[in-house]
Amino acid sequence: MAATMMALRKTQRARGAEMQEIPIPDFKHNEVLIKVLASSLCGTDVHIYQWDSWAQSRIKNIPYTVGHETTGIVMKKGSGVTRVEEGDVVSVETHIPCMHCKQCMTGQTHICHNLKILGVDRDGAFAEYLVVPEIVLWKNDPKIPPEYQCIQEPLGNAVHATLIEPVHGKSVAILGDGPIGLFSVGVARATGATQIFLTGIDPFRLNIGEQMGADQVINVSKENAVEIIKEKTGGLGADVVIEMSGVESAMQEGIAMLRRGGRYCWFGIFKENLVPTPLNDIIFNGGRFYGINGRLMMDTWFTVSNLLSSGRLDVRPVVTHKMPLANFAEAFELMIETPKKVGKIVLFP
Amino acid sequence: MAATMMALRKTQRARGAEMQEIPIPDFKHNEVLIKVLASSLCGTDVHIYQWDSWAQSRIKNIPYTVGHETTGIVMKKGSGVTRVEEGDVVSVETHIPCMHCKQCMTGQTHICHNLKILGVDRDGAFAEYLVVPEIVLWKNDPKIPPEYQCIQEPLGNAVHATLIEPVHGKSVAILGDGPIGLFSVGVARATGATQIFLTGIDPFRLNIGEQMGADQVINVSKENAVEIIKEKTGGLGADVVIEMSGVESAMQEGIAMLRRGGRYCWFGIFKENLVPTPLNDIIFNGGRFYGINGRLMMDTWFTVSNLLSSGRLDVRPVVTHKMPLANFAEAFELMIETPKKVGKIVLFP
Amino acid sequence: MAATMMALRKTQRARGAEMQEIPIPDFKHNEVLIKVLASSLCGTDVHIYQWDSWAQSRIKNIPYTVGHETTGIVMKKGSGVTRVEEGDVVSVETHIPCMHCKQCMTGQTHICHNLKILGVDRDGAFAEYLVVPEIVLWKNDPKIPPEYQCIQEPLGNAVHATLIEPVHGKSVAILGDGPIGLFSVGVARATGATQIFLTGIDPFRLNIGEQMGADQVINVSKENAVEIIKEKTGGLGADVVIEMSGVESAMQEGIAMLRRGGRYCWFGIFKENLVPTPLNDIIFNGGRFYGINGRLMMDTWFTVSNLLSSGRLDVRPVVTHKMPLANFAEAFELMIETPKKVGKIVLFP
Amino acid sequence: MAATMMALRKTQRARGAEMQEIPIPDFKHNEVLIKVLASSLCGTDVHIYQWDSWAQSRIKNIPYTVGHETTGIVMKKGSGVTRVEEGDVVSVETHIPCMHCKQCMTGQTHICHNLKILGVDRDGAFAEYLVVPEIVLWKNDPKIPPEYQCIQEPLGNAVHATLIEPVHGKSVAILGDGPIGLFSVGVARATGATQIFLTGIDPFRLNIGEQMGADQVINVSKENAVEIIKEKTGGLGADVVIEMSGVESAMQEGIAMLRRGGRYCWFGIFKENLVPTPLNDIIFNGGRFYGINGRLMMDTWFTVSNLLSSGRLDVRPVVTHKMPLANFAEAFELMIETPKKVGKIVLFP
Repeated sequence: MAATMMALRKTQRARGAEMQEIPIPDFKHNEVLIKVLASSLCGTDVHIYQWDSWAQSRIKNIPYTVGHETTGIVMKKGSGVTRVEEGDVVSVETHIPCMHCKQCMTGQTHICHNLKILGVDRDGAFAEYLVVPEIVLWKNDPKIPPEYQCIQEPLGNAVHATLIEPVHGKSVAILGDGPIGLFSVGVARATGATQIFLTGIDPFRLNIGEQMGADQVINVSKENAVEIIKEKTGGLGADVVIEMSGVESAMQEGIAMLRRGGRYCWFGIFKENLVPTPLNDIIFNGGRFYGINGRLMMDTWFTVSNLLSSGRLDVRPVVTHKMPLANFAEAFELMIETPKKVGKIVLFP
Repeated sequence: MAATMMALRKTQRARGAEMQEIPIPDFKHNEVLIKVLASSLCGTDVHIYQWDSWAQSRIKNIPYTVGHETTGIVMKKGSGVTRVEEGDVVSVETHIPCMHCKQCMTGQTHICHNLKILGVDRDGAFAEYLVVPEIVLWKNDPKIPPEYQCIQEPLGNAVHATLIEPVHGKSVAILGDGPIGLFSVGVARATGATQIFLTGIDPFRLNIGEQMGADQVINVSKENAVEIIKEKTGGLGADVVIEMSGVESAMQEGIAMLRRGGRYCWFGIFKENLVPTPLNDIIFNGGRFYGINGRLMMDTWFTVSNLLSSGRLDVRPVVTHKMPLANFAEAFELMIETPKKVGKIVLFP
Repeated sequence: MAATMMALRKTQRARGAEMQEIPIPDFKHNEVLIKVLASSLCGTDVHIYQWDSWAQSRIKNIPYTVGHETTGIVMKKGSGVTRVEEGDVVSVETHIPCMHCKQCMTGQTHICHNLKILGVDRDGAFAEYLVVPEIVLWKNDPKIPPEYQCIQEPLGNAVHATLIEPVHGKSVAILGDGPIGLFSVGVARATGATQIFLTGIDPFRLNIGEQMGADQVINVSKENAVEIIKEKTGGLGADVVIEMSGVESAMQEGIAMLRRGGRYCWFGIFKENLVPTPLNDIIFNGGRFYGINGRLMMDTWFTVSNLLSSGRLDVRPVVTHKMPLANFAEAFELMIETPKKVGKIVLFP
Repeated sequence: MAATMMALRKTQRARGAEMQEIPIPDFKHNEVLIKVLASSLCGTDVHIYQWDSWAQSRIKNIPYTVGHETTGIVMKKGSGVTRVEEGDVVSVETHIPCMHCKQCMTGQTHICHNLKILGVDRDGAFAEYLVVPEIVLWKNDPKIPPEYQCIQEPLGNAVHATLIEPVHGKSVAILGDGPIGLFSVGVARATGATQIFLTGIDPFRLNIGEQMGADQVINVSKENAVEIIKEKTGGLGADVVIEMSGVESAMQEGIAMLRRGGRYCWFGIFKENLVPTPLNDIIFNGGRFYGINGRLMMDTWFTVSNLLSSGRLDVRPVVTHKMPLANFAEAFELMIETPKKVGKIVLFP
């Protein structure tokens, strides 16, 4: 094994990132060293690349290695590690919990009080090697190809948001045609939702939504989603609304199209924290509302992995691009310049 | 409209039943008169036909009309009825609740303290006309053909048993290859179970199970279900076991094949009430166990109807026979003599 | 029985209300005629009395009788009524459901799609007699005195909001020291919350909160509730926050004091529907949020009644005033002019 | 610190146990060394002491140290331990999970597939010092005296069994007047059960049950529990039945006294695994049944600790005896010879 590796590093508090040759990292007794097979690009990576206001305030220490949706082979492990063996192919949960706070001690590690994020708070996965603590390891089903192993993390967002309550027999409106919205369509379809609406603005992505199983896609630049969904649900509104756009108007329309006593998820992050929200409508609706952050550890991973390896869920339509990690600049530009033509991009180191 | 109708009546406290011409029944202010389109045969009907010990103790008043899985057209309605209009096609919930006991007042009408059963405690559906109270009416989706509208009631048993907790991403073992077991396979498949086992003894029925979506069928006359299921679940056992056979050994094996912390349903009725049950194993398992009776009113009906009308669930393989109600004797004999060659039988008056 | 009765009527689309002698109302086959024993004053009644902008847009038909928190004796019943007998003492659920919409058919009658409100959409309870449909009747435990029977309805709001998830062993912050907030303190105390905070601005009411069982009352005009509650919960925040003030700043502080993965209820109605809400914080919190409307029918009533009749919950500190219905003007003025000195006011016709 | 300590050891595969001087144990990087302050006696300890058939088959390796309900001071900790500091007073969860099986990875560590039990599978707590892995540590509230800190483990059984669904506003029948049954009475009372029945056979213990808050105690050697409970619940049966006797007839009566759609827990271990169980009654009941094993890690510990430190739950009536560990023989004899006069016995090393 070489002593150094190539890694995509955030080296300056400014736009961009660069490939650097750096030492292969050390690992502690409770950590493993992973040889990365594939990593996919997340909107968070783009924020960091673009160095927007969120990234400026959120990123504490540079230089560091970005990326967090990944899969790889366990090369070495610390003396205290027992969950995996060398040679196992693993993906990693991005949320690194402290294991000692109340949430960590009651099954809510994904929203740990002292949460660290891979590729944000510590060196990430756009590299040849990666070190993570045992607690975040997920042993992959080798039947799943690496380009789909790595997207289990964002697919886990979709599974967590979609299935925080079961959807079987329900009407489900998914707002936003980004990759997680497209995944959610597939998840809802695979788990028995009987009426699936997807809203968005991009014909390319809405077409992927149809391939993923949407019964009806609604281009909100041309159509009135609230009217359509109310009409198609007997005037009652959808049983489930999953807001994945982070757009104020979509979020408000989501409340308007929700059946009384329905279920609503907030997943898409908004530009500003304070968003005008129809709280009286929410009160009279009498429903259940969820803030969705991350994935359940590791309940969601079991569901994700089983949906993929059983073939019940086929995510190929969403993974639109594959390229070498060395082409990272092209990948970021695709995400930034032509987001409407991109699903998920997988990078191979 | 004629003044009389043909109805299949239990006229004697002995084996058999006979078609009789009787008056079309009257209805009260909260009742409707339904012209029956189709009714399917249930094991309960067979018990009553055969006049076994259960039937002898359970049936209070004869003569009366048997049958309860049905669909038909609302011909007339009482002055207090507002849920349906004349001309609506409806199915009916078999469990007729009192609406005043604690269960009825807290969303558990299906296990009402004073429950009356259609076709058992009052005149049933093997007839040209039927009278039921408004509270049990379900307005059918006209896209669903009558032969599938009427089987929504037993399909509802399968939906209630299978989905009392969600199955998405889970391994599910269904014990018993009767019609409800076969329906359950289809329900589990349509709602995202990722590993579905069906146990039984009849190649004909196990084959239907495969058509309904079982990943593996196990003929327990030749194979060891506990061993197979444990081996296929990494030694842990199935996440979910649904006992639909009413056979003591199958029930006990079901506990043995259940993952610790899993979910188990008792649905199949046993010959004797007291059954040797591995309660210490149940305690150490630490799981959740359910007695399954009927269907949720009307939550289950929404799920059943939506699964059928969306095309997510196709129950055609289970409905093996259709014939005129006049041929009832042939239908009962098929159920009694060659149960292994029969799924559901639908009768048309 | 006399042919006429006294009733407090909204006779003009303007401030005020007046006592009038009107005919004792008729009832239908599914309705009962109740002789009112006691009725309590709700904030809604005050809005209608004051004829504020909400009342102007919400009240459709005048003249009509106001009031809805009540108890009385069943004098006569329609031919279709079976839940109660003449002579039964009953309270009434204010939310009158249609029984035919999806919510009504799935255990969510309290948020019926076609909901009618007693004392808003039809004649209410500030009268000698009242007519309601059977479906909303609750047979009272005669051990509970009439002045507490009538407050079961608003107490039900508190029970529904507080116990939509169990509170045993949890830290609970109740925001707002109105009567429902004070009831909620008692409910949380009686059901095992182990750390109860009440925020408010009125020493008189906060003192009642202490009598009801608050471990700590926080006068937000002098103290920083977020800081105090975070400090008293080890920096994590409260497990449960129940917003009952309808005040924007309190609502936002409620999010800030909520533990990650905690539970939050919106109950207090806001002046404007659109309220700036920290949705990104809600997303990162990863918790469960509920819009609270009415009470579960009739689950909540069972809990309310059992808590009262068992003596586990003592609501006497909240019922601060009792007076004849004829003194209604004094009662309304107390609520309007000196809300800080008033808990619940009970009126006797 | 001395090099040796006194410990109560099972030294022979026969009745009894003996105090021995042995080396203070070593600890690994993920373990802590605890100086024991107090430990309480469990029925399991008595089985091992008496060397009954269960103990003979269950205990693998002797000699070893018995005891598992404990509290003590962290004296030293391994290099990987971060949850506690030296000097912290801790109790320990008895169920030692593998952290790698499906249960451990989905919040069900208490029913780990590879569970090890303290004082059964490894050296226990009837000693001056104890070594346990970090994962089972619970940092105690110092306000709780040691004799109540150590009984948090069995109290946790009661909390887990009683509160697996909330009891507020419910009628609860607890079958069995052993210490866990008595604890359950207190837990049900503190968390809002509004009608609490305790069945048993010992006036001494039933009297403690009354002190703990039972509304009615039923001596089943003289009274018919099913009749009484049905009569006191309007003929419906109890909402909740918690079987803590391990007696076949009590278990069966428990089913008979359960309201349709109620909740039942099996906690008490039966002499034989296979117990005649009224499964048809269970099916028609349509309720929810739970096998109860251990406590949720660490959800239950939070509830236990909060109930004790808030003063909401007072367990003093149940802790009937305190004595030096050196008097262990007297303690065991009390448990064996006069169980009806004993609640919990706490031993101080």
